[in-house]
Amino acid sequence: MTQPATSFEPKNPDFAARVRDSFSRQSFMAHIGASLEVVEPGYVEIHLPYRKAMTQQHGFIHGGALATIADNAAGYAAFTLMAADTSVLTVEFKLNFLRPGQGEKMIAKAKVIKPGRNLTVVDSDVYAVSGGEEVMCVTSIQTLVALPGREDR
Amino acid sequence: MTQPATSFEPKNPDFAARVRDSFSRQSFMAHIGASLEVVEPGYVEIHLPYRKAMTQQHGFIHGGALATIADNAAGYAAFTLMAADTSVLTVEFKLNFLRPGQGEKMIAKAKVIKPGRNLTVVDSDVYAVSGGEEVMCVTSIQTLVALPGREDR
Amino acid sequence: MTQPATSFEPKNPDFAARVRDSFSRQSFMAHIGASLEVVEPGYVEIHLPYRKAMTQQHGFIHGGALATIADNAAGYAAFTLMAADTSVLTVEFKLNFLRPGQGEKMIAKAKVIKPGRNLTVVDSDVYAVSGGEEVMCVTSIQTLVALPGREDR
Amino acid sequence: MTQPATSFEPKNPDFAARVRDSFSRQSFMAHIGASLEVVEPGYVEIHLPYRKAMTQQHGFIHGGALATIADNAAGYAAFTLMAADTSVLTVEFKLNFLRPGQGEKMIAKAKVIKPGRNLTVVDSDVYAVSGGEEVMCVTSIQTLVALPGREDR
Repeated sequence: MTQPATSFEPKNPDFAARVRDSFSRQSFMAHIGASLEVVEPGYVEIHLPYRKAMTQQHGFIHGGALATIADNAAGYAAFTLMAADTSVLTVEFKLNFLRPGQGEKMIAKAKVIKPGRNLTVVDSDVYAVSGGEEVMCVTSIQTLVALPGREDR
Repeated sequence: MTQPATSFEPKNPDFAARVRDSFSRQSFMAHIGASLEVVEPGYVEIHLPYRKAMTQQHGFIHGGALATIADNAAGYAAFTLMAADTSVLTVEFKLNFLRPGQGEKMIAKAKVIKPGRNLTVVDSDVYAVSGGEEVMCVTSIQTLVALPGREDR
Repeated sequence: MTQPATSFEPKNPDFAARVRDSFSRQSFMAHIGASLEVVEPGYVEIHLPYRKAMTQQHGFIHGGALATIADNAAGYAAFTLMAADTSVLTVEFKLNFLRPGQGEKMIAKAKVIKPGRNLTVVDSDVYAVSGGEEVMCVTSIQTLVALPGREDR
Repeated sequence: MTQPATSFEPKNPDFAARVRDSFSRQSFMAHIGASLEVVEPGYVEIHLPYRKAMTQQHGFIHGGALATIADNAAGYAAFTLMAADTSVLTVEFKLNFLRPGQGEKMIAKAKVIKPGRNLTVVDSDVYAVSGGEEVMCVTSIQTLVALPGREDR
C-alpha cells in the first residue's frame, strides 16, 4: 500500500499522536471495526474489514459505511496540518459511488489538496480490496474547518 | 412528527412492503440501531436513537452515522416511486453539516424533488431531536438511479 | 413572484445598497444580461432573460449560465447577513440539473438556511419561466465564507 | 501543456469531430470567448482568456465562468467515450473554489474517472495560468448521463 509523499509541513509536530488519540475516542470507529492505518502530513488512511454487519440489502458494504470512512479520513488528513490549539469539523462533502463496496477490506485514502488556516479541502477516495487488488469505489471532495482555541480533547 | 403530503403516484402498489423488506435486509441498519419509521410515496423517515457507540471524539453522533441515515432515507424515498422490477442505487450525494448531531434521536427526512424513470433527485435532511424540539443538523441533495430488470431481493 | 419572508436580522443596515453596489461591479453579470431583482435579509433573486448568446448545443440556456446565477444569488443572499467590514467568497457549491433551461427567463432564488459568523449555507434554486409558469430546473446547496476586515470595494 | 494519456477506447471513432461540432454550436462558449483546445478519449481541455467582461466585483474571473468551463469540459470528456447515437447531459456537479481566478488564462482540464453506458463520472479542475505557471483554482466532480437514441445535432 503506497501513499503519496506529500510536501506539507505540519504546524504541530505531535500531529500523528493527536490524530491517533482523537480517533481512539471515536466510539463509532470501534463500533464499525475501522482502524487508522496511516497518518502522514496531509495524508491519512482508514481501513474497514468486511463484516456481514456492515452490509446493505445486496450484501455489499453499506454506502453509509463507505461515506463514514471517507469522511473520517478526510477530517484527520486535514487535522494533521492544523495548529495545536485547534479542533477540526467537517463543513461538507460530496461523494460519488463508482462501484459496489465488494471485497475483504475497504480503504479510505484522504489527501489534502488545499490546506488553509480556516478551511482545508481534501480528496478522499475509497478502494475495495479483493484478492490483493484495489479498485476505487468512492471518490469524494471534502471541506473541513479549523476551530481555533478549541482543543480536540 | 408531520411529513409533507406528496402528490406522487407510485408505480408499484406494494412500494411500502418492498421498502420495509429491503430495509430489513440491511444488516448495517440493525448494527447502528436505525429504524424505518415513515414510508409514503416519495417520502421516507429513518430514526436513529442516541447511543454512545454512535459518537465521534466530542460525544456527538458521528457525521458518518448522520450521512448514513440521510443516504438511506433518500434511497428508499426514491425507491417508493420506482417500478416493481427495479433495484435502486445511490449515484452520489452532497451534504452540509449545519449543527452537531446532539440529542436523544436523529431523524432523516427524505423527500423526492424530481422523480425519473432513470434518475431521481431527493432532498434529505437530518434533524436532531432534543426535548421534543427538532433542529436541522444536516442538509443534502442525493441522486439515485433505478436499475431495471434487477429485483431488489 | 413571491419570496419567502425570512426572519433574519441583518448586521449591516445598509445590506441592500451594499449588495446592489457589489453586483453592479460584476462585469460578468452585465455580459450575460443578468439583473438583481430582489434583495431581502437572507434572500436574493437574480433574473436572466433568454438570449441566443446564452445557449448550449440544443438551444437551451447553458448549464454554466444557470450555475452562474445560482452561485451569484447564493453569494449575495449570504452577504445580506454579513457584517459591514466583510467581503464574501463562495467556498463550494453542488447543483443538480432537473430540467432543461427552457423559457423566456431564468430566475435564481437563493435563501440562507444557516447563517454564521464564518460560514453560511444557502439553498439556491433556478426556475425556468415560460408563459408565466415557473418550473425548477436547478437545485443547489452553496457554502459561503465571510472575509472579515476586507471591504467588498 | 501536457494532458494525461488515458487508456480509454472510444466507441465512436469520430468522437473528436463530434465534440468539436457540438462545441461550435454552443453560443455561450463564443459569448464568453472560450475555446476547445484538447480532445482525447476521456480527456478534454477548454481555455478561457482573461477579459474584463468575465470578472466579478474584485476583478477576478467570475466563479460562474470558471464553473461553466469546468462543466463544459467534463461534459465533452464524457461525450468522447459515448456511442455515436447518443447525446450527453450533465446530471450534477460539485466544485470547490481553491484560489481566485487570477491570470491571463483559465484552463479547465476534465478527465473521465469512471465511464459507463448510462452514467459517467469526471474529475474536472480549472487552472489559472499566470506568467506560464499554472495553479489549480477549482476542483470538481461531475456526473454525466448518456441519452441513447438522441443525436447531439
